[in-house]
Order: sequence, then C-alpha cells, then structure tokens
Amino acid sequence: MKNIRLVLEYDGTAYAGWQRQPRDPSVQQAVEDALEALAARRGALHGSGRTDAGVHALAQVAHFHTDATVPPRRFAAALNAHLPPDIAVRRSEEVDPSFHARLGARAKTYVYTVHTGPQRPALARRVCHLVTAPLDAEAMEEAARLLRGTHDFAAFQASGSAVTRTVRTLSRLEIEAAGPFLHVTAEADGFLYKMVRTLVGTLLAVGRGRLGPADVEEALRSGRRECAGPTAPARGLVLAGVAYEGWRTPGYGASAAGLRRESGIFC
Amino acid sequence: MKNIRLVLEYDGTAYAGWQRQPRDPSVQQAVEDALEALAARRGALHGSGRTDAGVHALAQVAHFHTDATVPPRRFAAALNAHLPPDIAVRRSEEVDPSFHARLGARAKTYVYTVHTGPQRPALARRVCHLVTAPLDAEAMEEAARLLRGTHDFAAFQASGSAVTRTVRTLSRLEIEAAGPFLHVTAEADGFLYKMVRTLVGTLLAVGRGRLGPADVEEALRSGRRECAGPTAPARGLVLAGVAYEGWRTPGYGASAAGLRRESGIFC
Repeated sequence: MKNIRLVLEYDGTAYAGWQRQPRDPSVQQAVEDALEALAARRGALHGSGRTDAGVHALAQVAHFHTDATVPPRRFAAALNAHLPPDIAVRRSEEVDPSFHARLGARAKTYVYTVHTGPQRPALARRVCHLVTAPLDAEAMEEAARLLRGTHDFAAFQASGSAVTRTVRTLSRLEIEAAGPFLHVTAEADGFLYKMVRTLVGTLLAVGRGRLGPADVEEALRSGRRECAGPTAPARGLVLAGVAYEGWRTPGYGASAAGLRRESGIFC
Repeated sequence: MKNIRLVLEYDGTAYAGWQRQPRDPSVQQAVEDALEALAARRGALHGSGRTDAGVHALAQVAHFHTDATVPPRRFAAALNAHLPPDIAVRRSEEVDPSFHARLGARAKTYVYTVHTGPQRPALARRVCHLVTAPLDAEAMEEAARLLRGTHDFAAFQASGSAVTRTVRTLSRLEIEAAGPFLHVTAEADGFLYKMVRTLVGTLLAVGRGRLGPADVEEALRSGRRECAGPTAPARGLVLAGVAYEGWRTPGYGASAAGLRRESGIFC
C-alpha cells in the first residue's frame, strides 16, 4: 500500500467547498470520483483542511492510500484526465506512510484579493471581492500591525464554532496594492473557521472608517465576534500554500506578487 | 449628439468574437443591447477592431453617438448594470466628435499566454494555451528577433485574406517567462487577420524544433502562409491596449508584468 500526496489547484466557484456533501458537488468528491475511475481509491482522500464553498486553492495538499500500480508521479496526469477543468492536480508523489495532509500541516498561507475602484473587472471576476468605497490604506496597515502576532483570535471565527483553543500565531498579515487590486496575505500556524475572511472583513471595515484601531484591540481583548468586522465573501479567498515538517508547497511563504507569477492569476 | 468613448474588458470564452453575428453571441451585440436598455443607442457601436471568437480584451476601445442625457462618465456604471459578468466597461467619457475607435487607432498591444509544464492549471484555464512539450527559449528569442521590425507579414495572416498591403511594423515582440507561463507581447501599428496567433504559433514551432530561424526568414521573404507556423488557439490571446493620436489605454505599451498587475490576471 502506497501513500500518495497530491497538490491540487481549483476554482471553487462551482463547489460547495472541499468537503464531501450529501448532495452538493465538492472538490473532495470530484477527486475521489477520479480516483475511483482509476480504480485507485481505497478509503478517503484527506485534505490539509476544508475550504469553504466558493473558496479557491492554488496549492491544497491531500493524501490517499492506494495499491494501484499507477506510478506515483503519473497520478497527476491520470487524475487530470478524469477531473473537470476547474480542478487540476499539479503534482503527485509517493510519501512516507506517516505523512498525513491534515494532521501534519504546520502552517498555511492564504491570499485574499479585493478589487477596488468604481467599475467591476471581467477577467478576474471569479476571484475577487469588489469594494467601490474608498479605503484608508494607512488605517488598514495600522490594524494589520495590531493583528499580527500571537493572539486569542476567538472574535475572528464564525460565531457558534466549537473550537476551544483559539490562540493562533499570525506570522504574516500583509496588504499589497497592485493596480486596482489589494492582496491580503495571511500566514499562520492554523486558522479558525472563517478566520481569514473575518480578518479581511475587519481590515476592510477599518479601511472604510466603520471600525477603528481601538475596535480591533477590543475584539482581540474581548474575544467577542461582534467586535470584529463582517466576514468577507468567499470568492476573494485562495489557499495559496501549506507547510509541513521538512516540506512545503511552492505557494507557502510566497509574496502575493510571486503567487501571481506562479498561478497566472492574481492572488 | 455626443460622441462617447468606452474602454471595455471582456472574457471572450463565451463569444463568437467582437463583431455582431446573425445568430451567435458577440461582444458588440451585448454592449449594443445594453445601450438599447438605456435608450442610448443611435447607430452602431464601433470597436477599434474585431477580436476573434474566444479572444479576450483588457482594453478594447469603442465609440458611439448618443443624445441620451446620461452624463458621459456615468455610462460605464449604467452599462455594467445591463452587461453580463464576462463583459465590463472600465471607463466612459465624452470625446471630440472626430474620434473614431477604428479609423483613429495608431497601434495595438496584444499579449498571448502559454502555460508550459506537464499538468494543466485550473484558475487560469480560460486564458492560456497549454504546451507540454519542452520549448527552446533561445531559439524562440532568435526567431522573435528576426520577426521584429518592418516586414511584409503576408505569411502571417490567415490564408485567403483579401488585404493587399501587408507590410507592418512590429515594434515589440517580447517573450517573458513568469512561473510556468510564457507571455508573448506583440505591439504593431496594425495587425493582419490572425497575425498575432500566427506569430505565436511560429514561435512555438521554433521552440519545439519544428521550424528553424531559416524557416522564419523564408516565411518573411516568400510571404507564403505555409512557411509560417500554425495559428495558436484563441484562448491565450488578450487585446491589452490601443493607442491613438494623443491618447492611449493604460495597457498600451505596458509590459506583461504591468498588465498582470492591472488585470488581476496574467496576460
């Protein structure tokens, strides 16, 4: 039995998220179906984590066990032949039996893209959130500075979440302007449910003057969801990379500019 | 009667090209329909030139005459409310009655994107041509050098074209690698029918060793279509900018890297 690791890219627009759902299409199911078509499926495909409905990935990591005779590096091409155009396996390889995509993940990089300016784009329409109101870049930078570091991010997870340990180390939270786009890069040892989108929603609320730096401090201090900004829409979010002990995807730790080059799409 | 100039961005995937067709959807028709919805249409919408089926634009220029009372700069938002998500008006403004989008165009910039490497992408799938064979960058550079400048490009237009004056000045033909992508930027005072795609098809044939620099010279010298490479697929092509006397779109003259920043998508 071999343990195979995949690096997956997907446009999440048409999916109810990574995780298999009873009825709605999911990325996990699409890849599991492709594995089945290759008669290579033995048990579940494990992702590094769930991505929500509409969220994209440049480098989602997953693993599965198989006794199929397909050479490990050929799984990428073999699966791509069975996958829809909005999901692609970029790389496949055999890894140590102990590798686990979710349990072994040490850190992740996400990039969130906001389109600013009065008129909507066309080519990038699936991968950005549109904000037409003017944004105060300096205030956003100040808020990002407050959020970076090790904090209790309880206020930045979707309300009703059952997670009890809510301290995370947000090692990067960077805002980069590129033409009419703002790219927010977030890197942490782990993210709470909808945490990146709440961080971005908070930064945008600060940029629009609806929240101030004091509100951000209060959200961190109190842990109350209502003190943080709204959850930004899924469409702007891309899982850019995942880091493991001794191995990481190319997108992990990259700048938004570097990812743009790699992906062929901003992010 | 006012003369209004539009700068349009579109994803050409779903369209039979710029020009209105009897049956198939076209970008021109979509914008004319939106003008009609605003009761602002008087006669045709004139584009800077046709783009073929499946070709994209970051900055197509068009003009129309109207006696509608919509303030000129408000046409962008007003039209966007009636246009599908894959077509966007980025800018609208009143121009001199003498401005003509097609007759006044002095030069254009196109960017063609090739995805190299073994596995297909997902997010960029609509805007690149996939080449899995290895490409000889040096040979392609040498061929680009031969093609740049003022030449009779008769061999680089679709066969059967009725155009008789086929001398053009190709002021730029640059190949830039960015991650797994190659961007070919072409700038000229005018392009023959399918000329950019034939230039790219020729560069790719050279990169794959199917044609050599001598073949490129022979194509330029003989003007015979069969001496040049095949026509590269439409999906990789983006009209990036148009230049007029005294005015140009932001994409005209930009580098592929600059356009990537502006568009939120590689190109």
